[in-house]
Amino acid sequence: MSELIDHRVRDSWAGREAGAAALPDRAVRWLGQRIGRVGADRGPSGQTVPNLTGSTLAEPARAALEAVVGPENVLVDDSQRWARASGLSYLDLLGRRTGRPVPVPDAVVLPAGPDQVQSVLETCVRHDVGVVPFGGGTSVVGGVSALRGDKTSVIALDLARLDALVSLDPVSHLAVLQAGVRGPEAERLLGEHGFTLGHVPQSFERATIGGFAATRSAGQASSGYGRFEDMVAGVRLATPRGEWKLGVAPASAAGPDLRQLVVGSEGTLGVITEVTLRVRPVPSERRYEGYVIDGWAAGAAAVRRLAQEHVLADVTRLSDVDETTVSFALNAGWKTALLRGLLAARGIRQPCLLIVGWEGDVRARRRRTAAALRRAGALRIGRALGESWRHGRFTGPRQRDTLMDLGVCVETLETAAYWSNLDELRDAVRAALTAALGRAIVMCHVSHAYETGASLYFTVLTSRDDADPVGQWVRAKRAASEAITGLGTISHHHAVGVDHAPYLAAEIGAPGVDVLRAAKRAVDPTGILNPGKLIG
Amino acid sequence: MSELIDHRVRDSWAGREAGAAALPDRAVRWLGQRIGRVGADRGPSGQTVPNLTGSTLAEPARAALEAVVGPENVLVDDSQRWARASGLSYLDLLGRRTGRPVPVPDAVVLPAGPDQVQSVLETCVRHDVGVVPFGGGTSVVGGVSALRGDKTSVIALDLARLDALVSLDPVSHLAVLQAGVRGPEAERLLGEHGFTLGHVPQSFERATIGGFAATRSAGQASSGYGRFEDMVAGVRLATPRGEWKLGVAPASAAGPDLRQLVVGSEGTLGVITEVTLRVRPVPSERRYEGYVIDGWAAGAAAVRRLAQEHVLADVTRLSDVDETTVSFALNAGWKTALLRGLLAARGIRQPCLLIVGWEGDVRARRRRTAAALRRAGALRIGRALGESWRHGRFTGPRQRDTLMDLGVCVETLETAAYWSNLDELRDAVRAALTAALGRAIVMCHVSHAYETGASLYFTVLTSRDDADPVGQWVRAKRAASEAITGLGTISHHHAVGVDHAPYLAAEIGAPGVDVLRAAKRAVDPTGILNPGKLIG
Repeated sequence: MSELIDHRVRDSWAGREAGAAALPDRAVRWLGQRIGRVGADRGPSGQTVPNLTGSTLAEPARAALEAVVGPENVLVDDSQRWARASGLSYLDLLGRRTGRPVPVPDAVVLPAGPDQVQSVLETCVRHDVGVVPFGGGTSVVGGVSALRGDKTSVIALDLARLDALVSLDPVSHLAVLQAGVRGPEAERLLGEHGFTLGHVPQSFERATIGGFAATRSAGQASSGYGRFEDMVAGVRLATPRGEWKLGVAPASAAGPDLRQLVVGSEGTLGVITEVTLRVRPVPSERRYEGYVIDGWAAGAAAVRRLAQEHVLADVTRLSDVDETTVSFALNAGWKTALLRGLLAARGIRQPCLLIVGWEGDVRARRRRTAAALRRAGALRIGRALGESWRHGRFTGPRQRDTLMDLGVCVETLETAAYWSNLDELRDAVRAALTAALGRAIVMCHVSHAYETGASLYFTVLTSRDDADPVGQWVRAKRAASEAITGLGTISHHHAVGVDHAPYLAAEIGAPGVDVLRAAKRAVDPTGILNPGKLIG
Repeated sequence: MSELIDHRVRDSWAGREAGAAALPDRAVRWLGQRIGRVGADRGPSGQTVPNLTGSTLAEPARAALEAVVGPENVLVDDSQRWARASGLSYLDLLGRRTGRPVPVPDAVVLPAGPDQVQSVLETCVRHDVGVVPFGGGTSVVGGVSALRGDKTSVIALDLARLDALVSLDPVSHLAVLQAGVRGPEAERLLGEHGFTLGHVPQSFERATIGGFAATRSAGQASSGYGRFEDMVAGVRLATPRGEWKLGVAPASAAGPDLRQLVVGSEGTLGVITEVTLRVRPVPSERRYEGYVIDGWAAGAAAVRRLAQEHVLADVTRLSDVDETTVSFALNAGWKTALLRGLLAARGIRQPCLLIVGWEGDVRARRRRTAAALRRAGALRIGRALGESWRHGRFTGPRQRDTLMDLGVCVETLETAAYWSNLDELRDAVRAALTAALGRAIVMCHVSHAYETGASLYFTVLTSRDDADPVGQWVRAKRAASEAITGLGTISHHHAVGVDHAPYLAAEIGAPGVDVLRAAKRAVDPTGILNPGKLIG
């Protein structure tokens, strides 16, 4: 249970992180010069809970659900339903600030374990109630939106009570974790046995094991620990067709790998209740460093070489010139001034910041990465920069709150492509966003590198259009998504949800959509599972 | 085209390799002492083509197929149909020697490229003709058996003419190869550009790129180069629902990874026509060495440590005591005698042979593997043993012909499990085989190691029961498969085909079978694709 005193009351954080730090005036002025009007008079900055329509959950359905999980675990009050109504995208946060009406679940149901999840699903089939699985609520693509499809009512199935480490096999390096365990709690539970999962996406503090699996999450240390799908040895799901367990061996040729059909299924094929995960001994040492390379082309080429020569650090994150510039500007101070001076002295005019981090077996591996980076012309800045990034890496959401208070439209989006498409993709997305938004800062980094390609993560800052704040971002996102289609994937690690669903068919083909729909019908013939997500 | 002068005439090799080497008399005597009657009087050793029933392919269907691929590429004569009627399992080979009737395709169709494959499928839908994709014909699980399900006729769709390297992207380390390219030809084509695939299963010399993908193949160097599914960046399939292309990025969270549904689909979801593969520069150096460890438990623990400490060599193959003993006995000579003496002097009473091989970056990596092996108590024998294994590693099929000439029932089977189940699994399979076969040699090796577990590969030698040679092996295989179920996967790299289909449901669950059936119906509504395979 860790950080949750009472999992039934967690609306207090929904949509706004505690401890948002104020930006220095100098940084606010700099931002205003770049993107237009910015300031403390640009509210709303609070939370507004609108008057919700009443729960449409029929009394017999509610009674049946209460019989499964207990009356105290079927919540219908407005604040609980509102807290599970949306995720953490810019539009979600904006909606929470303005009280913009969004679909709201008719009840929040909190089962105690896999068996209760299975019973809840069977109950929902009988009463024809839609089910939206809810883990950390950190989706930025509408994954937890309470759509109901053709159902008259829908519940948020909150997995917070599935919070146990079920078993640990220290010989096979395998752990079974329940779906509702959050990132920090997973690490604490495993750490007691000397193991770590090593999965640290930016959503780490809130997101859950089940959510990581359902969305094909990728952590910041994916080069070392792998993407979440690489860690999944087995899954246990509740489905309307009965329980489904997969994964008996480290590798298999017994037909298609159905685990890889479940991972990324976003609640449309079942509710993941347990995940068997490959774990590793806690590393005895961690080391993070900062480098600077002159220009995006040189930086991307260096990262590609690291990946193709198998000397990637566990964390490898290359910022482009714009992101590096913003980072310097928002963190202005004597250290940054010193760094600027150093770069000027070395003749580096287009600095791109590169963070590299090793976890375990640091000495031998660091030597090889460092040698390759030297050959690539990268300038080593040192540990302070690396460690500062490591300690601040989950602060993004808090910074976003601060920026939104100032009237900034701030959002991220991401993709991935093969190396030979990467520059064209980056240019196309930047051009699309800039054309749609006018004065905007569009910055980009590579955070996940592979032998054949890399991810691209964009952060966009522009002055909010108060006349049409939703339309402003919807148009920009559409332009970016269309620019991505054909060059890269519509999502490298944010998943599909609602926002990316229109672009899925172009990526997986009409047969791919047909296959996903058919698979869903096979396990969910009445369509109760997460209506409207993934395949629409 | 390489080794194939004329791909339309390749029945000459079907079922019997050229150049089978005779076993020394001493080895034959040793074998006789262990398994009972063995000798040169135990024929049949030739090939017997029975009188086949005539082709049931209706004239309009044949004419339509000829219109697509040309009359010269629709073959209906007995020898061509017989050559594609079975694979290379012990029972397949036995059937060829005795002329035992098996299902035979009604025609062999050889399309020229992806478009023709698509047209052939559409033609087969119109005429309701079953389609068995045929690559190298090396299946040992009945994967190319000409079953027809509810169809009155069935064709073997031989992909031999899809033999091109379509494109190579040296920046992204990606190559597009057509499905009919065989292992050696793939290496030759890539080698011209300085790249290698590094996929060397025992079927390497004959098996094809499409077959590797369709069956989730794993090569002997899988620890270094990965399993075939790890190399697959993209696939192009012909399906009755139209062409299907997958793979736009090195990694994606755009829903489930459908590539991993296609890889291992064994022709039931479509005919793979092209595969986009991750390739690597040809290594500047290769080094193979032999080690000996005292006892299976110590050997398996050592390999586990290598995997979990990330210092596995690219090839890692641990033989158990029985396999090591047989290897010494069949290769008796002064070198073996010398080795036996060395082991006795060192007090190694239960020698287990360990072959390790590095491909590229040998020096640094070898030092780390060697240090770990030293700590595990392994005795380094040297390069001769390693290189001798490397050069002889594709001779298995030829040795099998020789043994079958001597009246030996010789077959292999394989599985994989998590480390903590591995010993129990090995014991269970050995016990099942021994109980079913009586006097038999059952040997085992680990050829693929992972952080969480390993494969087990069994080779069985026993004297053929001439009264019921088929029943003898069918019973043994059934006993082994039942022993595997619940402890490991029914196949680590041989796939499902017909032989393993009865055990698939226990492994992937009823929902898994339903999902596979539904996926098939979605792309193949009339069920023409490889009837009776995988999901039966």
